[in-house]
Amino acid sequence: MKVRLLITGGTFDKEYDELTGQLFFKTTHVDEMLRLGRCLLEIETQILMMKDSLQMDDEDRRVIVETCRQAQERHILITHGTDTMAQTARALGQAELDKTIVLTGAMVPYAFGSSDGLFNLGAALAFAQTLPAGSYIAMNGMYFDWNNVRKDLTRGIFERVEAEQQ
Amino acid sequence: MKVRLLITGGTFDKEYDELTGQLFFKTTHVDEMLRLGRCLLEIETQILMMKDSLQMDDEDRRVIVETCRQAQERHILITHGTDTMAQTARALGQAELDKTIVLTGAMVPYAFGSSDGLFNLGAALAFAQTLPAGSYIAMNGMYFDWNNVRKDLTRGIFERVEAEQQ
Amino acid sequence: MKVRLLITGGTFDKEYDELTGQLFFKTTHVDEMLRLGRCLLEIETQILMMKDSLQMDDEDRRVIVETCRQAQERHILITHGTDTMAQTARALGQAELDKTIVLTGAMVPYAFGSSDGLFNLGAALAFAQTLPAGSYIAMNGMYFDWNNVRKDLTRGIFERVEAEQQ
Amino acid sequence: MKVRLLITGGTFDKEYDELTGQLFFKTTHVDEMLRLGRCLLEIETQILMMKDSLQMDDEDRRVIVETCRQAQERHILITHGTDTMAQTARALGQAELDKTIVLTGAMVPYAFGSSDGLFNLGAALAFAQTLPAGSYIAMNGMYFDWNNVRKDLTRGIFERVEAEQQ
Repeated sequence: MKVRLLITGGTFDKEYDELTGQLFFKTTHVDEMLRLGRCLLEIETQILMMKDSLQMDDEDRRVIVETCRQAQERHILITHGTDTMAQTARALGQAELDKTIVLTGAMVPYAFGSSDGLFNLGAALAFAQTLPAGSYIAMNGMYFDWNNVRKDLTRGIFERVEAEQQ
Repeated sequence: MKVRLLITGGTFDKEYDELTGQLFFKTTHVDEMLRLGRCLLEIETQILMMKDSLQMDDEDRRVIVETCRQAQERHILITHGTDTMAQTARALGQAELDKTIVLTGAMVPYAFGSSDGLFNLGAALAFAQTLPAGSYIAMNGMYFDWNNVRKDLTRGIFERVEAEQQ
Repeated sequence: MKVRLLITGGTFDKEYDELTGQLFFKTTHVDEMLRLGRCLLEIETQILMMKDSLQMDDEDRRVIVETCRQAQERHILITHGTDTMAQTARALGQAELDKTIVLTGAMVPYAFGSSDGLFNLGAALAFAQTLPAGSYIAMNGMYFDWNNVRKDLTRGIFERVEAEQQ
Repeated sequence: MKVRLLITGGTFDKEYDELTGQLFFKTTHVDEMLRLGRCLLEIETQILMMKDSLQMDDEDRRVIVETCRQAQERHILITHGTDTMAQTARALGQAELDKTIVLTGAMVPYAFGSSDGLFNLGAALAFAQTLPAGSYIAMNGMYFDWNNVRKDLTRGIFERVEAEQQ
């Protein structure tokens, strides 16, 4: 099985700029994380964009959906900021691509201590290999279908909501 | 979904004793790791033993199999030393328990830097939720059926071998 | 020998707020760092303020100087943001307190990976024990007299400048 | 000021061999640690040996003393295992080299979490710059003269003992 891994940015990949004291994107940490996980799965990594998900617009989401549509792999993992992750999952779900697409991210940058990133990456890779075709979010050790998930902003966690009519 | 998490020891949970310079078991790090992963899955953690898997004998494996048999949960995750992980997976597979049982571990103790433990725990928890009933090993970002896996001791990785006749 | 350790904030003690994505002050990490360093020196820790040093004003500096003046200890270590550390060192130097006062900080928060904080704390504690009375900055593995040091903002390092006439 | 930094091994530089589960020496971490500390002091690093200090014999100590004697620098820092650090400090003290020589080490390998190594390195570098000529141990945030220090093996700390007649 081969998995395509699309990088879009998010807290996951943010770093601390010691000259300005601001958070910024330099490059992705995903390759380093896969090495740390001694991951031997065949993975094709592709950096689509490096954005805070609050900065993503409809065009960005269109790019993500089209990249998934045209990908040869049927198993796709996307790293993504958590704030609009549910929105991108919805766009992917509504596209009905007949592929297993899993979005994940982190509440704390991987480069900092105490990040959930490595745990989430492991879980999301596993879900991407085993779930049936569809669009999912993998966070908090669980997976959520695209049409019944939201981020609880006050607690910083993902939770199920009543499934909507599609 | 509820997952039972059985702790048996292994490199995963080893620590460095600064007085003796030896590795030893103090307690499990699994709860801390689940907190780090912001894991909200319902998990019942149980310490079965704290052993280097080279020290496990048939009686230990019998205890593991019986604990799985009697568990109410149908999804079980076991942390285990890597050296005899395939042997325990086999014992569980041959017991045909009609539960999804996933074994995982680490090549480097979680308490040290550069551990694969958090990645493996995330992946194994996801596999335990999604794979059909059976006995599996989750390592190196992949899952392996109990009857076609071995650890390559010279490279420190798990790999598929030709499935045997059961 | 007893050392007074005054906390004033700075990058050293900043943390990442996973709900807002902003850096903030929760509490000091100094006690945890001293434990990590197995430090057995007699140290009296005191939180004076928790401020980004760009937010410090003359009144803050007056409080720092007066606290040093009234301290019973003759060896004082101050954690401080790097941006105006040289300014506070000057205020302390001009007060001519007949005590050894060493300021230190960090370019990256201790709570993140890759912080210089623990190294700087060790060095500053040693300088505070051994340098003659005066006001100093301990950064980059070196110490600087208050009257010939500045932070090079473009490179994020401290360097000597020609000593001024006092 | 220029400091010579002699590496002799010790817990400081030990790593975990994930194939054997044993601790071993690969290379020194000192350069990485100095980078982390943003250290700009002029330092000449030299690997003398990579040994557990329990394996050091009189010949090893003779090599250390002679290297210090012939060094052009008057400020020398030595990383060393803690178990026989006091013995080497004594050999250096009795050699009366008219240089400031500071030994340091770590209770936990730098490569593991929770190491005191970075704190100790910072402190030892500062002591090496400021103490008068002599042989010292820098551990636990303090410095000890060679002729009144011992390691308390049961507590894993260094402590002063009554100074002996030289």
